[in-house]
Amino acid sequence: MGLVRKIIRKITPYKAGKPIDETRRELGLRDIIKLASNENPLGVSPKALKAILKNSKDLNRYPDSYGYYLKKKLSRTFGVSSSNLVLGNGSDELIDVVIKTFVEEDENIITSASTFLEYAIIAGVNSRKVILAALKDFKYDLEGIRRKINKKTKLIFIANPNNPTGTYVNKRELDVFLKSIPKDVVVVLDEAYDTFIDVDDFPESLSYYKTRNVILLKTFSKAYGLAGLRIGFAIANSEFCSCMEKVRQPFNVNALAQAAALASLEDREFLRKTKKAIWAGKQYLYDSLDAIGLTYVPSVANFILVNVEKSGIKVFKKMLTRGVIVRDMQQYGLKDYIRITIGTMAENRKCINALKKVA
Amino acid sequence: MGLVRKIIRKITPYKAGKPIDETRRELGLRDIIKLASNENPLGVSPKALKAILKNSKDLNRYPDSYGYYLKKKLSRTFGVSSSNLVLGNGSDELIDVVIKTFVEEDENIITSASTFLEYAIIAGVNSRKVILAALKDFKYDLEGIRRKINKKTKLIFIANPNNPTGTYVNKRELDVFLKSIPKDVVVVLDEAYDTFIDVDDFPESLSYYKTRNVILLKTFSKAYGLAGLRIGFAIANSEFCSCMEKVRQPFNVNALAQAAALASLEDREFLRKTKKAIWAGKQYLYDSLDAIGLTYVPSVANFILVNVEKSGIKVFKKMLTRGVIVRDMQQYGLKDYIRITIGTMAENRKCINALKKVA
Repeated sequence: MGLVRKIIRKITPYKAGKPIDETRRELGLRDIIKLASNENPLGVSPKALKAILKNSKDLNRYPDSYGYYLKKKLSRTFGVSSSNLVLGNGSDELIDVVIKTFVEEDENIITSASTFLEYAIIAGVNSRKVILAALKDFKYDLEGIRRKINKKTKLIFIANPNNPTGTYVNKRELDVFLKSIPKDVVVVLDEAYDTFIDVDDFPESLSYYKTRNVILLKTFSKAYGLAGLRIGFAIANSEFCSCMEKVRQPFNVNALAQAAALASLEDREFLRKTKKAIWAGKQYLYDSLDAIGLTYVPSVANFILVNVEKSGIKVFKKMLTRGVIVRDMQQYGLKDYIRITIGTMAENRKCINALKKVA
Repeated sequence: MGLVRKIIRKITPYKAGKPIDETRRELGLRDIIKLASNENPLGVSPKALKAILKNSKDLNRYPDSYGYYLKKKLSRTFGVSSSNLVLGNGSDELIDVVIKTFVEEDENIITSASTFLEYAIIAGVNSRKVILAALKDFKYDLEGIRRKINKKTKLIFIANPNNPTGTYVNKRELDVFLKSIPKDVVVVLDEAYDTFIDVDDFPESLSYYKTRNVILLKTFSKAYGLAGLRIGFAIANSEFCSCMEKVRQPFNVNALAQAAALASLEDREFLRKTKKAIWAGKQYLYDSLDAIGLTYVPSVANFILVNVEKSGIKVFKKMLTRGVIVRDMQQYGLKDYIRITIGTMAENRKCINALKKVA
């Protein structure tokens, strides 16, 4: 251990949602549902599946380093140019790329105290200082973040909607915030869950990257149902992108992820079905939680943060024995909470039945 | 640009082998062969293909973060324990992981001046100093590297066999070297091409990691024909591995790469066929180059470094117009050379025919 960097020895690694297969091995259960990682419950888009089969024979070749065809398709879909896009091995990798591209050794990063854990973990691995601002009413406290900005602040991560709370900052709040911060601070808007939005005042984030130091992160892991293939992308001004392209590794995004992502952008029907399922499931879970008498944080994403009024980790473990994997919130500092991913209606019912018996 | 880190602005990014599709778009050619990226010319193992098809439906789920089944299979194959393994998004990613795990801000890294470029590029992105030792007779000069070790040296990268020269350091040389260096230096043996070895005195590298600070890197991108899926792995002592596990991202290796890699380990026939094709192709290329009167560096890998006695970049471009993609060696500081990947016999013939007319 003496040879390992000091900072690495201290890191608490990210704890992933418990996989179905692992639960099966450990508990010997057969029927298990996973509502722990905000995955798409409907599976993979049939068009994406077709693209995977079609492209599998050429896997002896390295993937297209630049992602030519996928970027072309993304350009048309989002109304940006290819030079405004950077592809990543999931948007996780782009967090690392952004930090390496922008944050000098002595500069710092600000984010929320209860948000996607990878911002702080990846910053730590890169020996960068992270300043955390507490949530306010389960929401990103932009005013609190602004107050923490100092001369060494280079980067701010905002998950919008926020994971694990499901809340969002609206257009007006974000506009005010972006105008109030110093011009040499870069803001990352991580919009992993933007497809599930069902409100009118969500920020029109595509309007920011041209005039402000804003980088958008988006992913194919959630609504597009491709978590297993690892692909996400950044949208930013072309100067930022050209530097991020130098920092990412040349073959960071595998060939099937590129092909499947392109095809899934063409499958509007799958996306519609997904939204419909999530929105219906959300209403069912709200109603059921109300009936049980548990409070929760209203969500614009595909998961719900539920106050179980006792140790979330105990509730998680008890639900596990009933074949329902949810997420305990200990790592997020929310000990009395669990996070439930919205599943198919059958999964939602099974989850509520388990929760009734346990909570 | 003012917001981007100084060190990033200066980076010269890795230049990938030119993809077939890009060449088609740019030159309007139909019949193109690629002998530029040391890929397996026989395609993908049929068993791996089957595994990809079987696992595609579950891609809405995140991959197994730990790689349970693949590590089990690798354990049996290489006679190590699962705790001695770390999986990466290609061995490229593991270069980044190793640097982040071991090299403090003020420590340095030594490698060869003409070797796989990613060691120096990734070190640069991480703001780590790299010291280069010249090759000696196209081989890694271990004695030269030893002389460059100073108090701040933490890591040494040795590509064995070396890319792009195809040479290797033998067991005796490596034994002497490992005994001669300080105990607090970590040595990475990158064995991306070890499957193609056809000599008896290659180091038995699996014997080192238990007693010395040695990390092996291996890949599925070459002999196993899975470059497009991105998967490699490290073998090291379990303390090193547990720290590297903290540094890698939780979902760095996609689910199909894990499944395909596992299946390809079971396809001994595909591996035999691959070796047979490479060895036969190598003899054909040696004989043909001798007949043309071009000198080359004898290789134990699946590529040959050829002295074209004029600008390698010009030869590369002329061969391109004849539908043959090879690799110019400008980035490696070998301006009069090209590197030819050994292909199928038909590809080797087409390559030699083009080279005859061009060189």
